[in-house]
Amino acid sequence: MRTLSVDIKDQPYPIHIGEGLLDNAALIEPHLAQKRAVIVTNSTVGPLYSHRLQATLSKIGVESFEIVLPDGEIHKNWATLSQIYDQLIEKRCERKTTLIALGGGVVGDMTGFAAATYQRGAPYIQIPTTLLAQVDSAVGGKTAINHPHGKNMIGAFYQPKLVLADIGLLTTLPAREFSAGMAEVIKYGLIRDLPFFEWLETHIEKVIAREAAALIHAVYESCRNKADVVEEDEKETGIRAILNLGHTFGHAIETATNYSTWLHGEAVSMGTLLAVNLSTLETGFNASDVERIEQLLVRAKLPVQAPALGVGDYIALMANDKKVDAGAMRFVLLERLGRAKVAPANPRNLEQILSML
Amino acid sequence: MRTLSVDIKDQPYPIHIGEGLLDNAALIEPHLAQKRAVIVTNSTVGPLYSHRLQATLSKIGVESFEIVLPDGEIHKNWATLSQIYDQLIEKRCERKTTLIALGGGVVGDMTGFAAATYQRGAPYIQIPTTLLAQVDSAVGGKTAINHPHGKNMIGAFYQPKLVLADIGLLTTLPAREFSAGMAEVIKYGLIRDLPFFEWLETHIEKVIAREAAALIHAVYESCRNKADVVEEDEKETGIRAILNLGHTFGHAIETATNYSTWLHGEAVSMGTLLAVNLSTLETGFNASDVERIEQLLVRAKLPVQAPALGVGDYIALMANDKKVDAGAMRFVLLERLGRAKVAPANPRNLEQILSML
Repeated sequence: MRTLSVDIKDQPYPIHIGEGLLDNAALIEPHLAQKRAVIVTNSTVGPLYSHRLQATLSKIGVESFEIVLPDGEIHKNWATLSQIYDQLIEKRCERKTTLIALGGGVVGDMTGFAAATYQRGAPYIQIPTTLLAQVDSAVGGKTAINHPHGKNMIGAFYQPKLVLADIGLLTTLPAREFSAGMAEVIKYGLIRDLPFFEWLETHIEKVIAREAAALIHAVYESCRNKADVVEEDEKETGIRAILNLGHTFGHAIETATNYSTWLHGEAVSMGTLLAVNLSTLETGFNASDVERIEQLLVRAKLPVQAPALGVGDYIALMANDKKVDAGAMRFVLLERLGRAKVAPANPRNLEQILSML
Repeated sequence: MRTLSVDIKDQPYPIHIGEGLLDNAALIEPHLAQKRAVIVTNSTVGPLYSHRLQATLSKIGVESFEIVLPDGEIHKNWATLSQIYDQLIEKRCERKTTLIALGGGVVGDMTGFAAATYQRGAPYIQIPTTLLAQVDSAVGGKTAINHPHGKNMIGAFYQPKLVLADIGLLTTLPAREFSAGMAEVIKYGLIRDLPFFEWLETHIEKVIAREAAALIHAVYESCRNKADVVEEDEKETGIRAILNLGHTFGHAIETATNYSTWLHGEAVSMGTLLAVNLSTLETGFNASDVERIEQLLVRAKLPVQAPALGVGDYIALMANDKKVDAGAMRFVLLERLGRAKVAPANPRNLEQILSML
């Protein structure tokens, strides 16, 4: 097991990364304020792992009950959140009752937002069960639900008490979802860690094959990069925005297709290619490095060809992005491999990239 | 004008108290991050004051638009909050667009919660237009909406950038609502400020008559007491709970009557009498001081006789209170005038008090 600490003011918290952590009660016990907990999971993950977590909690005398959400990004909305609130109230959960998110990004984001807002703030723990959640969404305290007109438009910055990234839980993850998580893993190399990008170029097949040592390294390096950025800028007033490489385009793709055609990581992969192509026009990013990136994404079995939504639709969808400031759209651009910046883009360059789809 | 500073870590903010502040653009300008703002108000207050605020903002080149909510505690729910989100998105409000709450406690609580959660946090300003909001709900960063099964069950701690308490806005406040605000004013004397309680005993008629000097003093002393408590314990992990004197009973009364029979301050007044009567049994609080308190509430034209909901119903409704910890109900009790504590109560004492209604 490897451990990182996310040192956010007032409330540092650990991320444990390893195999079999779900059964290790000693990792969880110090972070519970009460002998009661709520497991929030979904209809896919719950049947696989919820009983194991309940057994782990029982060992330390913690009573738990389960809230099972429908599976899928399409359910990351008010109606599902409202079900969580209803059950928390019905079961008389208190301000100190810990919510445990057992699932992927959707479960984690919604559980975190429910915890942020239930009785003005209850504690929560992240036990991510997808690669994407382990390397990205479970770390850093971004919580949210979607609005019909924009992804993650309603949410809060609210840090968990603990993140348990058990790579053993990834054995049941479908290959397509595993690949989707790789889009975020590769992102860390692109935006701030050239050595990690190069390590991925030589080890990606081992990671994809879920070999434990390679996978733990990939998850650890991803979490380390994310924690570094989040510590520097918890509330995304500056540098944290670089974590959104490919996301402005990706969110537009997801919104246009009602979150139902592509997985988030797949949309990010396609969006990353658009962002690095835009970078060649905006920052002089090296065109041959675009090739290297595309090859790595393809080896990770990710889609790289964004859909042709039309230039106007792309721009309209991106105008709702949370990085917009005083009406100006801003993009995460690469200056070179391992170095990103956030800046507005020349509208003609943007149109040129989008019209080539 | 008098000014207080609420010194909460990272983000101290001023409370200005005086007459005619709504027209003073210089007080608002330093707290806006953009030349755009949204005025959130209701159908009663908006027609009275929104144009003046818009004119004030225009003077400093700030473009604003209005979101008008239906008036009343019964609308402090998800459906109304959802209307705010829809309009913020429709008008392409950004993360740095300031929301300005122009109204009473309901408008302030909902605007604050919308700000806390829109794009994971936008800035907001409180311009309270009721006495209750000026002395209590606009100060301290508690934001929330109600759930069908409990008041303020969904919310966040989220501090405003500025509070403008313009007592000139209280001239249009109906007498019943003004009195409701007095319940919270008196509360500060009871829980931590005997000299202020005694000042109220000699000046309450002047305050009720809305004489400017007396009213400014009452609002200032109330805000000072509240700011002191909030600075010590922003997130109500301890001492802040004393601000809820009378509220556990009061919330039960409001919930039982669907927030439609009594104003919040009226329910708090009735709840305060229950709490001090309970205190005589729990802490040996002086019975003759109960008389003094009752007289002051009556002089403030507040109801003091709680409804006979039945012991079982009261206890069931109070079991959802946010102060409940590990299943145990806790109450704000007075040890003596000007000194409060939070503690569980002997169930037999509680039943005795409730069965006397």
